[in-house]
Amino acid sequence: MTSLNNTTNQQLTPSKRSQIKRLPKRGNYETQAIYNILDEALICHVGFTVNNQPFVIPTAYGRVDDKLYIHGSPASRMLRTLNQGIEVCVTVTLLDGLVLARSAFHHSMNYRSVVIFGTAMLVTDTEEKYEALRAFTEHVVSKRWQEVRQPHKQELQGTMVLSLTLTEASAKVRTGNPVDDEADYDLPVWAGVLPLQMLPGKAIDDERLIEGIEVPDYIKNYARHSSTK
Amino acid sequence: MTSLNNTTNQQLTPSKRSQIKRLPKRGNYETQAIYNILDEALICHVGFTVNNQPFVIPTAYGRVDDKLYIHGSPASRMLRTLNQGIEVCVTVTLLDGLVLARSAFHHSMNYRSVVIFGTAMLVTDTEEKYEALRAFTEHVVSKRWQEVRQPHKQELQGTMVLSLTLTEASAKVRTGNPVDDEADYDLPVWAGVLPLQMLPGKAIDDERLIEGIEVPDYIKNYARHSSTK
Repeated sequence: MTSLNNTTNQQLTPSKRSQIKRLPKRGNYETQAIYNILDEALICHVGFTVNNQPFVIPTAYGRVDDKLYIHGSPASRMLRTLNQGIEVCVTVTLLDGLVLARSAFHHSMNYRSVVIFGTAMLVTDTEEKYEALRAFTEHVVSKRWQEVRQPHKQELQGTMVLSLTLTEASAKVRTGNPVDDEADYDLPVWAGVLPLQMLPGKAIDDERLIEGIEVPDYIKNYARHSSTK
Repeated sequence: MTSLNNTTNQQLTPSKRSQIKRLPKRGNYETQAIYNILDEALICHVGFTVNNQPFVIPTAYGRVDDKLYIHGSPASRMLRTLNQGIEVCVTVTLLDGLVLARSAFHHSMNYRSVVIFGTAMLVTDTEEKYEALRAFTEHVVSKRWQEVRQPHKQELQGTMVLSLTLTEASAKVRTGNPVDDEADYDLPVWAGVLPLQMLPGKAIDDERLIEGIEVPDYIKNYARHSSTK
């Protein structure tokens, strides 16, 4: 397994399980491509197995360098199970558009996804845990952490944080136009791409908000950083 | 397990694995609530296990009554594996907003998710397969199927379709404002909800589109049907 750092264009060596099997030309093992997808998406789907039964649970996450963090209550079945050191698969998917072909068969979607394999580690170091919590908040809304009340000791203790090292991961990306059968290009059917994006609406004040507090600029101008669309 | 039909307000009996463990007040076993989420979302995350290794793969899907269909090439590792009758977990998640509390600890997200358990069945009946393919297309863009070239025999044969019966499923929903610690409501920090929605951009014509073909109204006015936000 390649060890990672922050430089761009670094490649992960695909393992047996992280290697893209179907449509390998859509595969990408560059760490920066993987990080960009992880940083833009808001939720991941965590897969784990108990007695041969797979579970897939959506959850928030944060990233610091080559570590992905998930967190929750110590009562969470998912976290308690993952903390037993079992294999985990974490998948993050960004949907970028509908690909509308001239035939039903060639309809598709433009997307960017990352699949990560590994085993999760319990974060016990207080400083790393604190940084992980900062990463969760900043991942969702940049500039938020410095404005809000930061976690006190009981909250830190009452939060379970697990880390997953981003060594065995791959990205898969589809972009661009539909690919139709040659004979179908003459059909009088509209074809193309309908781009899709996760966009914010108007911020809704909490009903107990203190009078006179304005919506911050980082909320007014909120956007997920779009990279390779 | 309750058997399902199309009536609303029908309840599924939670099984040991489909019962919501964490925050059970967010749980919902009504079939219509589950169907609404499935019909609005565009992709699901399919979880399965091979030699204790979980895999989570994003894919498109369609629904007809109490059946969820996934499809792909017969060369797909996921489909071939699921066709062995192993346990599967399919999860669908809609992100509805960011929940911005006065403390980092109470930040959350508004979402609607569905988790389905079961085993997938190969669809061999030609008519059911054809209806499943129609459901895939219509799920993505309503009114599209009748306009495009429909699958011919080789395409039908070259598509593997699996069905999952929606008997063991649950929905989980969070809505509304942040819930802060009582003492934090006095903090001079903006709090509230930033709604998020998957929205279409401007349709992009395929570069080989026949001249004079306009973007159809069902694309111009495209929206995912929003239910309980």
